[in-house]
Amino acid sequence: MRAVVEQLEASRIREVANEGLGRPDVLKFWFGESDEVTPAFIRDAAMASLQAGETFYAQNLGLPELREALAVYTDGLHPGRGAAHWVDRLAVTSGGVNGLMLASQALVQAGDEVVAVTPVWPNLVAQPLIMGAQVRRVPLRVVADGPRAGAWALDMDALLAAITPATRLLVVNAPNNPTGWTLGADEQRAILAHCRRTGTWILADEVYERVYFAGDTPNGTAPSFLDVAQPDDRVIVAHSFSKSFLMTGWRLGWLVLPSTLTATFSKLIEYNTSCAPVFVQRAAAVALQRGQEVTPALVAHLRVCRDTLVPRLRALPGVILGEPSGGMYAFFRLEGHGDCLQTAKHLVREAGLGLAPGSAFGPEAAGWLRWCFASRDTDRLVQGADRLRRWQAL
Amino acid sequence: MRAVVEQLEASRIREVANEGLGRPDVLKFWFGESDEVTPAFIRDAAMASLQAGETFYAQNLGLPELREALAVYTDGLHPGRGAAHWVDRLAVTSGGVNGLMLASQALVQAGDEVVAVTPVWPNLVAQPLIMGAQVRRVPLRVVADGPRAGAWALDMDALLAAITPATRLLVVNAPNNPTGWTLGADEQRAILAHCRRTGTWILADEVYERVYFAGDTPNGTAPSFLDVAQPDDRVIVAHSFSKSFLMTGWRLGWLVLPSTLTATFSKLIEYNTSCAPVFVQRAAAVALQRGQEVTPALVAHLRVCRDTLVPRLRALPGVILGEPSGGMYAFFRLEGHGDCLQTAKHLVREAGLGLAPGSAFGPEAAGWLRWCFASRDTDRLVQGADRLRRWQAL
Repeated sequence: MRAVVEQLEASRIREVANEGLGRPDVLKFWFGESDEVTPAFIRDAAMASLQAGETFYAQNLGLPELREALAVYTDGLHPGRGAAHWVDRLAVTSGGVNGLMLASQALVQAGDEVVAVTPVWPNLVAQPLIMGAQVRRVPLRVVADGPRAGAWALDMDALLAAITPATRLLVVNAPNNPTGWTLGADEQRAILAHCRRTGTWILADEVYERVYFAGDTPNGTAPSFLDVAQPDDRVIVAHSFSKSFLMTGWRLGWLVLPSTLTATFSKLIEYNTSCAPVFVQRAAAVALQRGQEVTPALVAHLRVCRDTLVPRLRALPGVILGEPSGGMYAFFRLEGHGDCLQTAKHLVREAGLGLAPGSAFGPEAAGWLRWCFASRDTDRLVQGADRLRRWQAL
Repeated sequence: MRAVVEQLEASRIREVANEGLGRPDVLKFWFGESDEVTPAFIRDAAMASLQAGETFYAQNLGLPELREALAVYTDGLHPGRGAAHWVDRLAVTSGGVNGLMLASQALVQAGDEVVAVTPVWPNLVAQPLIMGAQVRRVPLRVVADGPRAGAWALDMDALLAAITPATRLLVVNAPNNPTGWTLGADEQRAILAHCRRTGTWILADEVYERVYFAGDTPNGTAPSFLDVAQPDDRVIVAHSFSKSFLMTGWRLGWLVLPSTLTATFSKLIEYNTSCAPVFVQRAAAVALQRGQEVTPALVAHLRVCRDTLVPRLRALPGVILGEPSGGMYAFFRLEGHGDCLQTAKHLVREAGLGLAPGSAFGPEAAGWLRWCFASRDTDRLVQGADRLRRWQAL
């Protein structure tokens, strides 16, 4: 086996989750998904497709029906070019993570240098490693003082200094998993201008685009590289149905590409998964068409979740926590508990509380804990915070 | 974009299929799938899972229920070790092709040398290229005379001479798509013995294991590397639900691995697609449990399909065709029509007959045509052969 693959880290989140096997009493907030089932009308669309016998191969790039719906959706969020512009820039993928892997395959080869803004969910860094690249991490910094103390922020000078003409690819996930950090449009413009000079591709994981709470954009979504980039810029944006449509288990995502790359991604899809199931794509098309019934209420509820959990955590002794402006995670440090992997295991065993260790997202986040607050029932968040409080008092 | 990825060939099958867009009158035999819908009881299992709200992430390696069912299935086909032996050697993948891509990621890095037995469906060769390897093709040879004239056969000396200590990986697909060539157990033993000496991994694509007509094995399945290899041999076998269970569009497969690799493949799955949908896996588990209701009748029907089509093709002037002993393809040469891509396009336009050009499977197969005979209605095969006959007379 290849050494680089063998050395990929096993998931520390799963290592913690294993502590909770057979423990139904544990309140589980460790994985990045809501505990809410996909809405019935979306599941119904998949069932109707199965009933109709749609069990054959589909187009590599996705069903035309779904690509059309995605084009309308994209134009709605990033208006100005018209839906027709987007159709040729879309590739439906077998999950957001699959789209990101395809992008690494297209852009990265052995010896390439990749810059990643970290901490970040581990897959984004592992993918270029699998393709043989060197990954240089540019850490976000924790704000020390003031109203945003405990939040993570970009050191733009450090990032731009790290991206040189030798940098093949920048991978950046904002709104960020795990930190809740987001990128502003001006920052995106600055990064893009710099990457134009260095010839660096930007792979932007924007799957939390809709899960944005800052309220400082016209349509409520997080700033996107799609709003600042030209169609032929070296920018690929990855999306997923998982977070905005409560469809984690469906494994469906999409990429927005420069149109000159679309045919190549069609080939890469053929060689990786060939296509996504038709019945899954039918469900996704309905999710987009009736998205107004899902996403706005979901985002409003996630804000309630955040506003339920964050003050309760901040009220606990030794908690350092900035309010996340996007995503669905409270990311916090517990003073006096430096080994977050052990802390997370202790919390499972001793408090019945399931959190993800920050070190799963990079050494920069050692000592931190990630709490996914996407909970249908906000009482679970209250109970979880109580468990943490009582555990601290043990 | 990476040059190697940009240079990957676009599908010549799809290039031909594009000729038939909006032509419902074309009899389509170009893709490698049956025209039969997945059996209702399998679809019902997926619908029940969706109805029950199983829309969340699953384990990277697959649902325990499905892995258990696969272990029982594997032990049934390759008896002697017991089902428990296989559980730790299984990884559920997002299609057979996805499993093969994971294997290339695990085993192949830039500069590695890979040997491929060809002609073969293009994905098997493209995957190591994406990982930066050099691929050396070892062509099957067409039998010139005798009862097997027109069939493709392995030149064992040429294959073993091509596999040296510098060879990282051998990829071999038998029963073979497109040629219908199969490997015998003695040949598998010889290849394995040689690869043990050279330290070469074997990646065996055995997705047509069940679609075997020779009748020379105890349980009717094609000879498998699993029957000749030891558990810790450097052998990975790829499987799929697509062909044996009429589930092409579901995108579900599995790998059989040395148990020491399973944890690494769990990570690779996380970084590629993370998991297969639970509702797809539930359907697959039912397909395995009630497989006796599907696969034997399917294989018997495919034999009827083969025996309907092959004699009719052989009766046509200039057709060179060996009877396939496995798989679901009639692979034949039409004398006087050397450019098979153009021939296939002509056949669509002029005969209403949709076949795949042999050159899609490698330069060795230029001048050949692939006809997928997996047709629910054998009359379609008769009509297709008639169309070819009439076209020849034009």
